[in-house]
Amino acid sequence: MTYQPGQTGIVVQTIERADQAVIDGLAECGVATVHEAQGRKGLLASYVNPVYSGARVAGSAVTVLAAPCDNWMIHVGVEQIQEGDIMVVGVITPSDAGFFGDLLATSLMARGCRGLVIDGGVRDVKDLTEMGFPVWSKAVHAQGTIKETLGSVNVPVICAEAHVNPGDVIVADDDGVCVVRREEAAEVLEKARAREANEESKRERFRAGELGLDIYGMREKLAAKGLKYV
Amino acid sequence: MTYQPGQTGIVVQTIERADQAVIDGLAECGVATVHEAQGRKGLLASYVNPVYSGARVAGSAVTVLAAPCDNWMIHVGVEQIQEGDIMVVGVITPSDAGFFGDLLATSLMARGCRGLVIDGGVRDVKDLTEMGFPVWSKAVHAQGTIKETLGSVNVPVICAEAHVNPGDVIVADDDGVCVVRREEAAEVLEKARAREANEESKRERFRAGELGLDIYGMREKLAAKGLKYV
Amino acid sequence: MTYQPGQTGIVVQTIERADQAVIDGLAECGVATVHEAQGRKGLLASYVNPVYSGARVAGSAVTVLAAPCDNWMIHVGVEQIQEGDIMVVGVITPSDAGFFGDLLATSLMARGCRGLVIDGGVRDVKDLTEMGFPVWSKAVHAQGTIKETLGSVNVPVICAEAHVNPGDVIVADDDGVCVVRREEAAEVLEKARAREANEESKRERFRAGELGLDIYGMREKLAAKGLKYV
Amino acid sequence: MTYQPGQTGIVVQTIERADQAVIDGLAECGVATVHEAQGRKGLLASYVNPVYSGARVAGSAVTVLAAPCDNWMIHVGVEQIQEGDIMVVGVITPSDAGFFGDLLATSLMARGCRGLVIDGGVRDVKDLTEMGFPVWSKAVHAQGTIKETLGSVNVPVICAEAHVNPGDVIVADDDGVCVVRREEAAEVLEKARAREANEESKRERFRAGELGLDIYGMREKLAAKGLKYV
Amino acid sequence: MTYQPGQTGIVVQTIERADQAVIDGLAECGVATVHEAQGRKGLLASYVNPVYSGARVAGSAVTVLAAPCDNWMIHVGVEQIQEGDIMVVGVITPSDAGFFGDLLATSLMARGCRGLVIDGGVRDVKDLTEMGFPVWSKAVHAQGTIKETLGSVNVPVICAEAHVNPGDVIVADDDGVCVVRREEAAEVLEKARAREANEESKRERFRAGELGLDIYGMREKLAAKGLKYV
Amino acid sequence: MTYQPGQTGIVVQTIERADQAVIDGLAECGVATVHEAQGRKGLLASYVNPVYSGARVAGSAVTVLAAPCDNWMIHVGVEQIQEGDIMVVGVITPSDAGFFGDLLATSLMARGCRGLVIDGGVRDVKDLTEMGFPVWSKAVHAQGTIKETLGSVNVPVICAEAHVNPGDVIVADDDGVCVVRREEAAEVLEKARAREANEESKRERFRAGELGLDIYGMREKLAAKGLKYV
Repeated sequence: MTYQPGQTGIVVQTIERADQAVIDGLAECGVATVHEAQGRKGLLASYVNPVYSGARVAGSAVTVLAAPCDNWMIHVGVEQIQEGDIMVVGVITPSDAGFFGDLLATSLMARGCRGLVIDGGVRDVKDLTEMGFPVWSKAVHAQGTIKETLGSVNVPVICAEAHVNPGDVIVADDDGVCVVRREEAAEVLEKARAREANEESKRERFRAGELGLDIYGMREKLAAKGLKYV
Repeated sequence: MTYQPGQTGIVVQTIERADQAVIDGLAECGVATVHEAQGRKGLLASYVNPVYSGARVAGSAVTVLAAPCDNWMIHVGVEQIQEGDIMVVGVITPSDAGFFGDLLATSLMARGCRGLVIDGGVRDVKDLTEMGFPVWSKAVHAQGTIKETLGSVNVPVICAEAHVNPGDVIVADDDGVCVVRREEAAEVLEKARAREANEESKRERFRAGELGLDIYGMREKLAAKGLKYV
Repeated sequence: MTYQPGQTGIVVQTIERADQAVIDGLAECGVATVHEAQGRKGLLASYVNPVYSGARVAGSAVTVLAAPCDNWMIHVGVEQIQEGDIMVVGVITPSDAGFFGDLLATSLMARGCRGLVIDGGVRDVKDLTEMGFPVWSKAVHAQGTIKETLGSVNVPVICAEAHVNPGDVIVADDDGVCVVRREEAAEVLEKARAREANEESKRERFRAGELGLDIYGMREKLAAKGLKYV
Repeated sequence: MTYQPGQTGIVVQTIERADQAVIDGLAECGVATVHEAQGRKGLLASYVNPVYSGARVAGSAVTVLAAPCDNWMIHVGVEQIQEGDIMVVGVITPSDAGFFGDLLATSLMARGCRGLVIDGGVRDVKDLTEMGFPVWSKAVHAQGTIKETLGSVNVPVICAEAHVNPGDVIVADDDGVCVVRREEAAEVLEKARAREANEESKRERFRAGELGLDIYGMREKLAAKGLKYV
Repeated sequence: MTYQPGQTGIVVQTIERADQAVIDGLAECGVATVHEAQGRKGLLASYVNPVYSGARVAGSAVTVLAAPCDNWMIHVGVEQIQEGDIMVVGVITPSDAGFFGDLLATSLMARGCRGLVIDGGVRDVKDLTEMGFPVWSKAVHAQGTIKETLGSVNVPVICAEAHVNPGDVIVADDDGVCVVRREEAAEVLEKARAREANEESKRERFRAGELGLDIYGMREKLAAKGLKYV
Repeated sequence: MTYQPGQTGIVVQTIERADQAVIDGLAECGVATVHEAQGRKGLLASYVNPVYSGARVAGSAVTVLAAPCDNWMIHVGVEQIQEGDIMVVGVITPSDAGFFGDLLATSLMARGCRGLVIDGGVRDVKDLTEMGFPVWSKAVHAQGTIKETLGSVNVPVICAEAHVNPGDVIVADDDGVCVVRREEAAEVLEKARAREANEESKRERFRAGELGLDIYGMREKLAAKGLKYV
């Protein structure tokens, strides 16, 4: 019973987006790093999984609020997609039906959309995989949907237990999906880059056989807490 | 991973509430009727269950946004409670720990609070039952919590997959929990009352042995759809 | 995705029922004993739970095949109920919506129906409890349903993973729900009675402090399997 | 507690099968299309998943009713397999044990079997993947099974909440599993082909950048329902 | 797949127990307080629930390691029960079958057993409730069990994800089940008593309307963390 | 609430390991065969899944007992790893957080560790896959962890419902994870080899089209149980 924050029956045609270079930078950093860089917030529920492994994307959220078992508003949302966007679909009441398949993926790819995150089910996953259109969904389900009930496009939505505003930056990979508030995207990227640089130097030391105990100087704190070697 | 809409670190001290007579009327109608009267929206996820059976309450939402395994903000929220309120606790990341027990219930009762709805766990449920303080929770769990991390009070929260604003009306009974937007409360009550009146007359006819098929005049529509009696 | 065995769009008006005395006898024996007596078969999935504790009933199954979120066929089914029946509702695709509430319960009680078993949700559970109409359901949910799609009445249905024919005997109590094939009901009752008699004599011995080890003569077999007392 | 429709202790040696060309055609169409073409019915529960991605098969159901944790009847069923069949295993009470592994797969492949659908667990999945024998199962589990209790072969079974008759056509791919009644297979194929042709033409238009809003002429209906662009 | 620490085929006839006065004291304190008093450890998984509400007991653990769907060792364990014990049943592989019903409860009551905690299912719950024999179980299920496979009695077991030694003290109430190591029982009781005394004085202050913010002196720490009142 | 058998705050630096040739032999046999060879015991809960498909490893368990959401003890455990070990992480209370990522994997690989089994979540799974470091985990989750609370290294742990001693042999592949007691490893390998030899000869016969009914001589026993061919 996802009781959504926004109104139904509305399509917002103009949204602000973050700087594309910032978005692309966040994609390079990936979900785990971005999530850390923004203070460990913004993860969607881990029940949203990639349809196939290996993709890593970021984009501006074009949000769709859909009725259960009804993909009508996804069609409405496609028109609002710009090159570099990611469609984020929240659902008014939970539904695992197959809202999305290869035809809609074809349509989104034609508009430069980078992926889909949906708090519901998808189908034609063999085709989606072959097309290389990345999708994070709650379920894979062949069950069809209808086109009867209005929702909205580009209003705030709850998707996989996270609050997503239109224009927020979505980062998604095999670890899951993370949302970054649009206003914070540049600062988060900066922190994520710093984190990456720091991790890279550590990775070298780990590879050379150094221990985290020494790299992070943990031995004293462990001893102070009372850890005993026997 | 409930990524909440609001900011942390804030206590809003003044919120608007619906008219108390309206709230009391909604309590009388109960969750199923109120939910129907407002167009079948506003239900919290059905994983939130009453700790004991038989209670039916309504009140103005004082919202608390709590960190996982941390009930500090509940203490902060108590101070904002007025006679007739219901505390609604959203959690930043999902947690089944026991955020709430008999001491906090004593404190809330002392302030005239009518109940608690929490997207987490509670404990001391034997005491809560004996005290008659109604609680709807995601879990019963003895696991204790800490008091370390700030959240907020009286900001919008996601609780059990529903978006709740401070001052919205919460209705709760054995069927679950429903939220009514404050601005819509009076109108929803009017519709709920009409619905009740209508149901009462039908209840008499059902009791006398009349069939829904006849009361609702369904036979023709069923035949038109092709239903066959064999 | 319960893909049902029967056809939709049909109401079978004449079904055979087991002898009422047999049915009443099975009610006295209860679910666990009946299930044992018929060779440990016939249990419905344990996700079907009583709405309130303490009821123990049996009756002839009047089966309803309903569309998801649609309680239209329940109204159609009410007309087929006779004194002593139990309504069993299977659903075409899984749905936790609230198919059934106090008005339908009033109607069923007026016709002498002894209870409801439903592979879906119910609501008004406070009322159902006060009315004393026993219900076994998959969920409690206030979410309303519609009246749009045909199903059937008195065709074989899958309910809670069990295959139920119209006229089969349903036994239900706090342990769950068991179905007995109509043709086997008399024989199952006989075996259940024998089992009860046997258990009663054992109960006395247990009460007097005798051990199952001795009553059932288990010590030798345990020793033979190699059990060691240390 | 899957209480099955059929009798145990029986092997039906002669079953009718659909025309092989029809079956092969249904395989080409895939689960989502076939499911749509037959009026959105026949899907098995989505908890049955492919052991590896990318397979798409169809075949005539040879049904096996197995006791929990007991794969004896699968051995019995192998003998009834003909070139082009798919084995469908229902279980008398739910069990996630590993009923099936590489030896049985070798045996089925030797008889021309196209795949396995099982309402239970399988093991040796690394081998199954390397052998290219497609399996849809409820679980992957190394736990072994026994050979003690009779079930049946080629009786109607409940598998993953769906009722499957021997000789029904099973279609399975990454979207899940769908059953088509044998008598309806030819007609369903015809409709599925028509659907595919229609989708292919739409796919081209989507690829060229046309919107679903225009292809399906949705704009008027959306406006009539009150959708507002802001 | 609970892979147990101990050996099968053994009955340990002599175990040490904690002082009965200490055990009785722990019962008075209840699960939440005891769990806190011993440093928030020892809770069993919260999937173990009371069959009926309102009981609060403590006793020395007589442990039983049972095979799945097999209650033979429970009969063996009964003989090891002394006045004031609680039987704790771990299962070698997970099983929701109904291991325990009214006959075994009669036998345990005859020996002065105070309750049962079982990582499996029970049945005859209407009888158990009427007899007043408290049971905490993973499931309620009518499905019968067999008597074929050896387990052990009074070896360490894993029950509901917790490691329980024979003679450990089990405390159980509506909040769940907690295990206290036998050697620590007296000290835990002392701390639990201190905690209770402290809580009682706070309860009075809460009842009088004082706030936790003041009782616990939280305001400064909250301000230091940056909490803002607006 | 995994209540662990061991003490916290301890690192055991010397553990016994099984013979490396035995361990390597067990790896070749794989989980299903090893599990059978040791009498169908030792499987971890099937909720522990490989992060990527196709790996098959065995090694000596270096056990880590970690606090929830805290990976500090994993760093401590790395130092105890020798060439050929597998790290096994139990968690004091259940946690799906991302305890482990590419940096720790780099560190473990540098020490010759063959894999990780963790009763919690991991992240950076795209990197883990590319590095070829095999991991079996309860969840994939980007959520970060802290370094605050002591656990232990090389004490007995409960991991995925199984009791694992330091130095036990862990076997893991796509079918799951199995633990073999160190003292029994050589004997289990012998039985597993015998089983493999037996299976290989059967595999040939299955491939040639022989039936299990004949290979295992099942026909008589089936007839004796009453199986009827119709």
